[in-house]
Amino acid sequence: MKAMVLGGPATLANLGYVNRDARAPGPGEILVRVRASSLNFHDYLVAVGLIPAAPGRVLLSDGVGEVVECGPDATAFKVGDRVMGTFFPDWPDGHPDERHTARMRGDHVDGFASDYVVMRETDFTPAPRNLTDAEAATLPCAGLTAWRALVVEGGIKPGDNVLVEGSGGVSVFAIQFAKAAGATVIATTSTDEKAARLQAIGADHVINYTTIPKWGAAARNITGGRGVDHVVEVVGGDLSQPMQALRVGGALYLVGALSRQPIEFPTALGIHGNRRIIGLTVGSRKHQLDMVRAVEANAIRPVLDRTFPLAELGDAFRHQEAKAHFGKISISI
Amino acid sequence: MKAMVLGGPATLANLGYVNRDARAPGPGEILVRVRASSLNFHDYLVAVGLIPAAPGRVLLSDGVGEVVECGPDATAFKVGDRVMGTFFPDWPDGHPDERHTARMRGDHVDGFASDYVVMRETDFTPAPRNLTDAEAATLPCAGLTAWRALVVEGGIKPGDNVLVEGSGGVSVFAIQFAKAAGATVIATTSTDEKAARLQAIGADHVINYTTIPKWGAAARNITGGRGVDHVVEVVGGDLSQPMQALRVGGALYLVGALSRQPIEFPTALGIHGNRRIIGLTVGSRKHQLDMVRAVEANAIRPVLDRTFPLAELGDAFRHQEAKAHFGKISISI
Amino acid sequence: MKAMVLGGPATLANLGYVNRDARAPGPGEILVRVRASSLNFHDYLVAVGLIPAAPGRVLLSDGVGEVVECGPDATAFKVGDRVMGTFFPDWPDGHPDERHTARMRGDHVDGFASDYVVMRETDFTPAPRNLTDAEAATLPCAGLTAWRALVVEGGIKPGDNVLVEGSGGVSVFAIQFAKAAGATVIATTSTDEKAARLQAIGADHVINYTTIPKWGAAARNITGGRGVDHVVEVVGGDLSQPMQALRVGGALYLVGALSRQPIEFPTALGIHGNRRIIGLTVGSRKHQLDMVRAVEANAIRPVLDRTFPLAELGDAFRHQEAKAHFGKISISI
Amino acid sequence: MKAMVLGGPATLANLGYVNRDARAPGPGEILVRVRASSLNFHDYLVAVGLIPAAPGRVLLSDGVGEVVECGPDATAFKVGDRVMGTFFPDWPDGHPDERHTARMRGDHVDGFASDYVVMRETDFTPAPRNLTDAEAATLPCAGLTAWRALVVEGGIKPGDNVLVEGSGGVSVFAIQFAKAAGATVIATTSTDEKAARLQAIGADHVINYTTIPKWGAAARNITGGRGVDHVVEVVGGDLSQPMQALRVGGALYLVGALSRQPIEFPTALGIHGNRRIIGLTVGSRKHQLDMVRAVEANAIRPVLDRTFPLAELGDAFRHQEAKAHFGKISISI
Repeated sequence: MKAMVLGGPATLANLGYVNRDARAPGPGEILVRVRASSLNFHDYLVAVGLIPAAPGRVLLSDGVGEVVECGPDATAFKVGDRVMGTFFPDWPDGHPDERHTARMRGDHVDGFASDYVVMRETDFTPAPRNLTDAEAATLPCAGLTAWRALVVEGGIKPGDNVLVEGSGGVSVFAIQFAKAAGATVIATTSTDEKAARLQAIGADHVINYTTIPKWGAAARNITGGRGVDHVVEVVGGDLSQPMQALRVGGALYLVGALSRQPIEFPTALGIHGNRRIIGLTVGSRKHQLDMVRAVEANAIRPVLDRTFPLAELGDAFRHQEAKAHFGKISISI
Repeated sequence: MKAMVLGGPATLANLGYVNRDARAPGPGEILVRVRASSLNFHDYLVAVGLIPAAPGRVLLSDGVGEVVECGPDATAFKVGDRVMGTFFPDWPDGHPDERHTARMRGDHVDGFASDYVVMRETDFTPAPRNLTDAEAATLPCAGLTAWRALVVEGGIKPGDNVLVEGSGGVSVFAIQFAKAAGATVIATTSTDEKAARLQAIGADHVINYTTIPKWGAAARNITGGRGVDHVVEVVGGDLSQPMQALRVGGALYLVGALSRQPIEFPTALGIHGNRRIIGLTVGSRKHQLDMVRAVEANAIRPVLDRTFPLAELGDAFRHQEAKAHFGKISISI
Repeated sequence: MKAMVLGGPATLANLGYVNRDARAPGPGEILVRVRASSLNFHDYLVAVGLIPAAPGRVLLSDGVGEVVECGPDATAFKVGDRVMGTFFPDWPDGHPDERHTARMRGDHVDGFASDYVVMRETDFTPAPRNLTDAEAATLPCAGLTAWRALVVEGGIKPGDNVLVEGSGGVSVFAIQFAKAAGATVIATTSTDEKAARLQAIGADHVINYTTIPKWGAAARNITGGRGVDHVVEVVGGDLSQPMQALRVGGALYLVGALSRQPIEFPTALGIHGNRRIIGLTVGSRKHQLDMVRAVEANAIRPVLDRTFPLAELGDAFRHQEAKAHFGKISISI
Repeated sequence: MKAMVLGGPATLANLGYVNRDARAPGPGEILVRVRASSLNFHDYLVAVGLIPAAPGRVLLSDGVGEVVECGPDATAFKVGDRVMGTFFPDWPDGHPDERHTARMRGDHVDGFASDYVVMRETDFTPAPRNLTDAEAATLPCAGLTAWRALVVEGGIKPGDNVLVEGSGGVSVFAIQFAKAAGATVIATTSTDEKAARLQAIGADHVINYTTIPKWGAAARNITGGRGVDHVVEVVGGDLSQPMQALRVGGALYLVGALSRQPIEFPTALGIHGNRRIIGLTVGSRKHQLDMVRAVEANAIRPVLDRTFPLAELGDAFRHQEAKAHFGKISISI
């Protein structure tokens, strides 16, 4: 078994591609031949040491592969099944509480940057049948974050208006899930080229925030002055623009903080606007089961950027760091 | 003003096509030139006296028309706006309670079987811009019933499985809304010809219940044994088949009772199956506002059967009584 | 280890009090010295063969005891902790689906009619600190059923009106939880003596259904004509009376079927009344954690009937069969 | 009719106590002899011009009185009924949206600082039968804000932990409603004397934030490290302490902004903590109907500070400005 692990101190230069001893799956466990993973902002923060993790930790929260061996009492899958890892090892179902979110894969517990993994069968769900391994491997973190925001927390319905920011992994999935749910999507972006790609994915309206810095009002105008029902917030910091885009009683899902700034907004936008801010990290195994059904039923295809082999994970992270990608960066294993 | 009203006793032969005096709209009221209506089972039950209503009652709960005059303080619409009536005059918003559902249009209060009506502005919403008058006039009762079942009560989401029965108005709308929401639809029907039409509208699977009387198990098999998430129940009586189609924890929306038999089902299907039965009648004005947005955003087109002029309302009801129609029977005014 | 197990065929006369070999707790398991259990209708149906279960099955879904030994990786409890078993071994959290409710303790898997049990730590929650072992042992089935009906499904709030039927275990807990939640309770019963006891527990109003067979209307009158918000239904069969007691838009929780008759009710009570019928069996481990907090915070004390030692389980079931008990029949182990 | 109205510019010195002509109630309207009102922070901000309102505006959003005359078609109340005004004239029911919250009483429309008012019958609900006029007049703004936060948005249940800040009107009601709902309450305060009063009202734990500035951690410790389920936030500004008090997945209800500072908090407390911030202003008429039932059923008595006659409204506001009051400042009319 080969794995890409965190060095000490945690830097991209210190990533280690190491051999590890295999072990047979124990009770309730399965051995999986991992075929693909993908990169998330969380993976990057761990890899460069901005989120502390133990040296030797196997990286990457996403993983898709094939069941090679089932341990005793492991009955959920059979050899040959294609499976997809889950982000939270301790969150089977239900609303999040302190029992569910303490440990994350590729952070507090080993991830999928390895050709073989032995985990509990409950650490997996089926992978969508309509997707390649590389495509499916983009879903467990970024896909499920968008799904949980709009579908689980937002209860999105046909005719709703959704605002997404930029063209990162979560935002692109949010466009796809919103369209599958019958909603109208407004996306913000910085270039005409990206605008065209966002529209090709399904965005109904695109606002260039470099030319329209007051894009909150612009988004509101698109909805006839009412405001959008949902904002999928990936930037953080000053929320004045997205809060102004939001209708009275609408919800902003705080899922990312690319700005790395504290959250800030004028009080009246919250109180008098009866708006809500829903902080959230990914979702439960149950949410993933539901998302898989949705991806299959609606033939949703994740958008892939470049693919890197596992041995070149450092280069993949540098490509991610450059922020020129569109869609998910894929890792083949 | 001409109107089609209930006679005494209430029979199709006793329908009266009468002249009525016009009156100017009072405070908060508008005068509307009605252009179209459509027939619902509720309208039929009133027309033939199975639901008692006062002689002289103006029939039909559905109505679409154009604003001709706005009374004092009526500011929601302007002259020329196309508006669509609401089913419950006393239900603006919220979960139903005793204040909301006591009075129904075309039953306890006058309906839209009239060339002109004067009602409060809150008795209307905008009509979807993408629909003809005749199409829009099918939405307030049948459309909103399907919307409320699947979207409001069901919280339908992409990847859900929905079962609809037959090809009546509510069932056809349920197929359309379910598809707009990204769900998979199983429809039951009695002939291959209707099966083909249901598939053309969007049904993913059709079960012929005359050749497969145990269609509950058949529907369950289509879902891989799990069962459907939602059943839109329009027949009533013995619910054994639809309850067997339903997954553990699923919901049956009891919206119609074509069988006119009491509800009956084996206890274990409810208790051990953790299934729920949601009785419901149409919805609120707020639900209608949301539905209109969804119809526009998803370019949904109601399915029309034949059109009758208002003067031939009796013939239209006889056509409805014959149960050979597919989609909504339209009334032009 | 001694256990009370099902014979073949399953009858009270065939119950077997047997010796079994102990085993050490494996990974994630704990060894528990069981101190108390209690009887539920479900236990009775298994014991007399009306619910089929395997010969040798250890009976009783309720159990409270003390942790004696923790297996490897079992970290949720420590030796000496007092723990309370859960009803569903496969339902940690979330809304019920097919993965959660297939197996019930004392039915598909061994129960707590044993002096020692080895189970997974996730098969337990803490027991409320304010209760004796016997009191706590009444909660996992009957208590959690009432909790899930009113709190989880019903979202009960101060000022709501609740109707409970009779004085069985679930109904008594429903009174106690409803009062803790600030609601008003109407109870039905058959004798003045039981009426007094129900009022002592907290019922605000009691209706004698032997003298007032149309008790649905009587309950409605108590609420000023509006109807109750919640009915905890334990009898089943013809639901006309409880449905008439229920307000428009109210909910009936179908949790028991003492009548052993199919459910039946007039359609209009469901559809036009916008009423809902929520079938349910007990609840998840998460629901139990919440209930334990509520029992502690509100100093709720379960109502006990007689106590039988485990060796006299057959007599305990005969006492239950006679239906003269009030509150829960307790088993000391 | 006499009324206390806003001058121009809006200052406490410019308040005008004026005579106005009476008018008869029109269709759907009632004439009410107002007996009591109370002061809210919103009233103060209007009175001193920090919230702009038209000169001549009748002040005060709270009002309780007796029906003196019913206009045509006004059937909800009869002469002599005791009624309580609602805060939002346009919000009958449902989740808030742009149609509901645009106009507030005593701000965009005339309030209750008048001996007689003519308003629509839908601008009132019954007043709780167990309260004096002065007590009831504290409910429509402050009481309903606390009710909506904990009961409507929070779905509070027995055993939950609630944190309230200080001893203002909303916080005191939050303690009372939380206790009625079976929850445990932690209150913060600045003096031992106020701590004793908060405990007398029902607070289970009190933290003195002047001696314990890191009170977020202190509140968390009281819950055994888990964190509280609900925070009723009335201060605003830096939310670090209340967010640290909140459990993973918990909710903070942003109902007041005494600090008059923008909202700010570290991102991770929101995202990784899966916490939500629910901005809200008061509630709907339906929420008030539910609250009235709860107040009656649980015999809740609002806490009154001093009473001022309407003619001395300026002094009453100055008393409010001094921030030495405990409970609601009452206005007799």
